[in-house]
Amino acid sequence: MLPKFVTLYEVGPRDGLQNEAQVVPTDIKIALINRLAAAGLREIEATSFVSPKWVPQMADNAAVMAGITRALGVVYPVLTPNLMGAEAALAAKADTWAIFTAASETFNQRNINCSIAESIERFRPVMELARRHDVRVRGYVSCTLGCPYEGAIAPDKVAEVTRALFDLGVYEVSLGDTIGVGTPNKVAAMLEAVLKIAPAEKLAIHCHDTYGQALVNIHEALKHGITIVDSSVAGLGGCPYAKGASGNVATEDVLFLLNELGIETGVDLHAIVRTAWFIADHLGRAPSSKVAHALKDKLAD
Amino acid sequence: MLPKFVTLYEVGPRDGLQNEAQVVPTDIKIALINRLAAAGLREIEATSFVSPKWVPQMADNAAVMAGITRALGVVYPVLTPNLMGAEAALAAKADTWAIFTAASETFNQRNINCSIAESIERFRPVMELARRHDVRVRGYVSCTLGCPYEGAIAPDKVAEVTRALFDLGVYEVSLGDTIGVGTPNKVAAMLEAVLKIAPAEKLAIHCHDTYGQALVNIHEALKHGITIVDSSVAGLGGCPYAKGASGNVATEDVLFLLNELGIETGVDLHAIVRTAWFIADHLGRAPSSKVAHALKDKLAD
Repeated sequence: MLPKFVTLYEVGPRDGLQNEAQVVPTDIKIALINRLAAAGLREIEATSFVSPKWVPQMADNAAVMAGITRALGVVYPVLTPNLMGAEAALAAKADTWAIFTAASETFNQRNINCSIAESIERFRPVMELARRHDVRVRGYVSCTLGCPYEGAIAPDKVAEVTRALFDLGVYEVSLGDTIGVGTPNKVAAMLEAVLKIAPAEKLAIHCHDTYGQALVNIHEALKHGITIVDSSVAGLGGCPYAKGASGNVATEDVLFLLNELGIETGVDLHAIVRTAWFIADHLGRAPSSKVAHALKDKLAD
Repeated sequence: MLPKFVTLYEVGPRDGLQNEAQVVPTDIKIALINRLAAAGLREIEATSFVSPKWVPQMADNAAVMAGITRALGVVYPVLTPNLMGAEAALAAKADTWAIFTAASETFNQRNINCSIAESIERFRPVMELARRHDVRVRGYVSCTLGCPYEGAIAPDKVAEVTRALFDLGVYEVSLGDTIGVGTPNKVAAMLEAVLKIAPAEKLAIHCHDTYGQALVNIHEALKHGITIVDSSVAGLGGCPYAKGASGNVATEDVLFLLNELGIETGVDLHAIVRTAWFIADHLGRAPSSKVAHALKDKLAD
């Protein structure tokens, strides 16, 4: 019923640090990414090739990509929202890229200033460049379980946008609960619609823990055959829609659940918790996860 | 599959405040309990009739019971670990009492300094007094999903202790994950054993959120027909086994899940979140729940 192995796709250095108010120095980012790889993570989203005018936190994208130690068997995807970003990602030797759209028209308009259909068109030259250079591209769909502007999102709409991304040529689609309003029932309905158009092994679940529901939702997704889970060490990122609230589910909380369910990940929990405290200490605040606190005094050397 | 109605059994004023380092003034406790009742909770564990030498936080038990406004249809259970406590509870006009033992011999020895069998014997005069005065008594079993000293606990052992409590005459047994190490698989195995000896409607689940797993485990319990969930407003209580870690699952986190699943409780989420901030502000720290933070700026008047 549950998968035997789950891939944790780490989004802390990108989706996490991009949403932190303070800009983290490049050497700390590099140390963070190298620690995450050493902990056993095999997919670590490293940075975003987006205009520094919009996202100053990621202005050092090329320096981060040049500075990290590329570990064998580890991929370091980067966000490439447009052709200019993709060209910069190519120059930085990023082997995996990611593009994002939403299942909500209003959210897309407010977030990336175009309709869903326009966003798909905007990605065509990115995909073309990727194909020419043998780069894999991941797709993200935001607001798959609810939208801050539109409220409920129809599961069929999520399936439609997911299909459009696969038609573009992405190798995998990550289904995001951007505002953390998901529940197991909504996850089940959404996945049942999306699984009609794509196999489970090409789908990731990306849960936010705004209302503490991420693990319940991830557990439900696992029961639907999902084997790729996005998470953010220390719960990096916060929530732009509710001040002080949690955003991305913490890697260590997800890993604890998977470990206890007997699901293999290849990732060392204590190493992740140490890394969570490393970056949290740097940011001057505690990790948002329960596990980091519970294990703080029990870490093995 | 899921129940239509769930009873939230609030443990914040007792299990919560008992495990907070600072002693909360009696008038704040009374205001807390009255606010919880006004929010729609119908079962609010109010205090403990235990020696103030052991639990100074509960030394004002009689004053709390005398000070609260007994709302119609609300019960205010109190802990009565021995005959002396039961007599004091009776004098304080507590209409529901609670006794507790564990599914782990080692935990029982260290926690209440006797074996499980001895604890059951110790409760006989308490039950006798309760019967003479028409007082209902709730039973607690600690460590049903794991013990800090023994590790894994056999589901059959939990069923055996639960049966001993029902044989004593308790009306309901609360199954506690005292150290928060439960997972859905363990919950399923434990409940399957216990449901062989008692119907679901007489069982409560009492989850700790030490590792962020409480909601996953509660969701699993609901799927097994459990309709009574223990929780603690603001996550009051902390964890005596890991400094800085979460203890009791927060009422507002459970309530958010139940609301979103369409399960009725009769409890108002915003009133609970306001109460969480009321007591957290008094303690000088933030609630441990995600929901209290996410809703802080969105509370209806």
